[in-house]
Amino acid sequence: MSIFCWPARVYWEDTDGGGVVYYANYLKFLERARTEWLRSLGFSQRELARTAGIVFAVRSVKIDYRRPARLDDELCVTCEPRARGAASLSFAQRILKAAPAAAAAAEDLLAGAEVRIACLDARTFRPQPLPDMLLSALGAQED
Amino acid sequence: MSIFCWPARVYWEDTDGGGVVYYANYLKFLERARTEWLRSLGFSQRELARTAGIVFAVRSVKIDYRRPARLDDELCVTCEPRARGAASLSFAQRILKAAPAAAAAAEDLLAGAEVRIACLDARTFRPQPLPDMLLSALGAQED
Amino acid sequence: MSIFCWPARVYWEDTDGGGVVYYANYLKFLERARTEWLRSLGFSQRELARTAGIVFAVRSVKIDYRRPARLDDELCVTCEPRARGAASLSFAQRILKAAPAAAAAAEDLLAGAEVRIACLDARTFRPQPLPDMLLSALGAQED
Amino acid sequence: MSIFCWPARVYWEDTDGGGVVYYANYLKFLERARTEWLRSLGFSQRELARTAGIVFAVRSVKIDYRRPARLDDELCVTCEPRARGAASLSFAQRILKAAPAAAAAAEDLLAGAEVRIACLDARTFRPQPLPDMLLSALGAQED
Repeated sequence: MSIFCWPARVYWEDTDGGGVVYYANYLKFLERARTEWLRSLGFSQRELARTAGIVFAVRSVKIDYRRPARLDDELCVTCEPRARGAASLSFAQRILKAAPAAAAAAEDLLAGAEVRIACLDARTFRPQPLPDMLLSALGAQED
Repeated sequence: MSIFCWPARVYWEDTDGGGVVYYANYLKFLERARTEWLRSLGFSQRELARTAGIVFAVRSVKIDYRRPARLDDELCVTCEPRARGAASLSFAQRILKAAPAAAAAAEDLLAGAEVRIACLDARTFRPQPLPDMLLSALGAQED
Repeated sequence: MSIFCWPARVYWEDTDGGGVVYYANYLKFLERARTEWLRSLGFSQRELARTAGIVFAVRSVKIDYRRPARLDDELCVTCEPRARGAASLSFAQRILKAAPAAAAAAEDLLAGAEVRIACLDARTFRPQPLPDMLLSALGAQED
Repeated sequence: MSIFCWPARVYWEDTDGGGVVYYANYLKFLERARTEWLRSLGFSQRELARTAGIVFAVRSVKIDYRRPARLDDELCVTCEPRARGAASLSFAQRILKAAPAAAAAAEDLLAGAEVRIACLDARTFRPQPLPDMLLSALGAQED
């Protein structure tokens, strides 16, 4: 199974006065990749809220910043599901400077992260089991 | 009547790779000042949505950027109500580098803006007359 | 000549508590489109700063918000050069909900903007004539 | 020694379509508190770059999100220096909903974080020992 990787371009909005991407903005890239990974499985979060009554909330983030990204850089943001709880999902994510094919080169790793997500009832914000259709899609992906 | 002025400090989050505040982020400063101007009249937007069932939406912005704001700068953001429609309000706003007292010095004007706001039903997003209690507060301020 | 149009997807980062895209964030979409329009002519802003010693700064923005963009929406952001001064460029830009082909449908226009850009010396921040190679590229495009 | 605490108000810019503060934006609050903690010791980062030739870069963040912050909430963001290396500093930080005095109440803890910062040469971006004057100020604070 190949690793899911979502491209991102660095624009002015992402940089700060130090000339590099502002540290909080890497989390936006991570979220885009998780959203697109989910979409690649056939799920839109807006639809999940409407049809399954669930939303996802980030419970924790661990991120290591290795090298800075700069204006105009083309990034590749990976998203790999890891541990899975009844109402939660964990992801390993990386932000690479180069295209997926070059992912093996250590110098391309800009940041590495672990992100834990909780599945919540869209109205009460209480933990909710991951919907079956999502579990099925995840299971199919792992086979 | 003195001009309402809300202080803002420039942090890394506000700057971009050019070393100055990113052009979209001045609109955040403008919004903070409008929100605090409203609060100074006794209104919280969260409360207005809950009790009066209304929200405000920006209809248009005209902004002129004169001089850049930089990291650590202390700003003063003004908010002056101008024209008023049945379901809308217009504001003249300025972003100044110095304290309100120095507002007269032309070199302190970093940006000037005109912002038009619509009052909407919080559920249907349709135009809604400005609530009476807000009109009363505005009237009292003008006296 | 067809109109330059850059796609943008709405992510959580773009929305606010009102459930729609935060008004300042539309300016990020506009900037991405201008940057990509420039890239389509063969210019990267990082390169222009390094080789021609110039940067671009936004001088003014006029934006009308017509309809809100929401999470997951696919947008198309246009960029059309208009008036040109010795050291400045003006653009008409639109944010549409649908693909470029559908651009004629009025209901797809989410926002319209006029943006004026100044060309500055990258070190002194003083107005600088637009570089010849950029003028040539613009001229070629107009033919 | 009392714990340094910097106030923050939640504005529309901070929230997302879920009605709560967007997960990346808590990192902005953390950075403001670190910047103001440094300022409380007498240091501005702009001055440090100019006079000591150093900048700070975030190396890692671990953040646990406990409860969401919402529009209009008043937050208190703490900043406590912890481990110190030759060219790095670590901080424990918390985001609380209530005023510092109430910091003991568990229900007010919205997020807890550990942040590691590196001191870099402003030009080469290579690790640089923490400047003596900063070490002195830190030492004085600990006494």
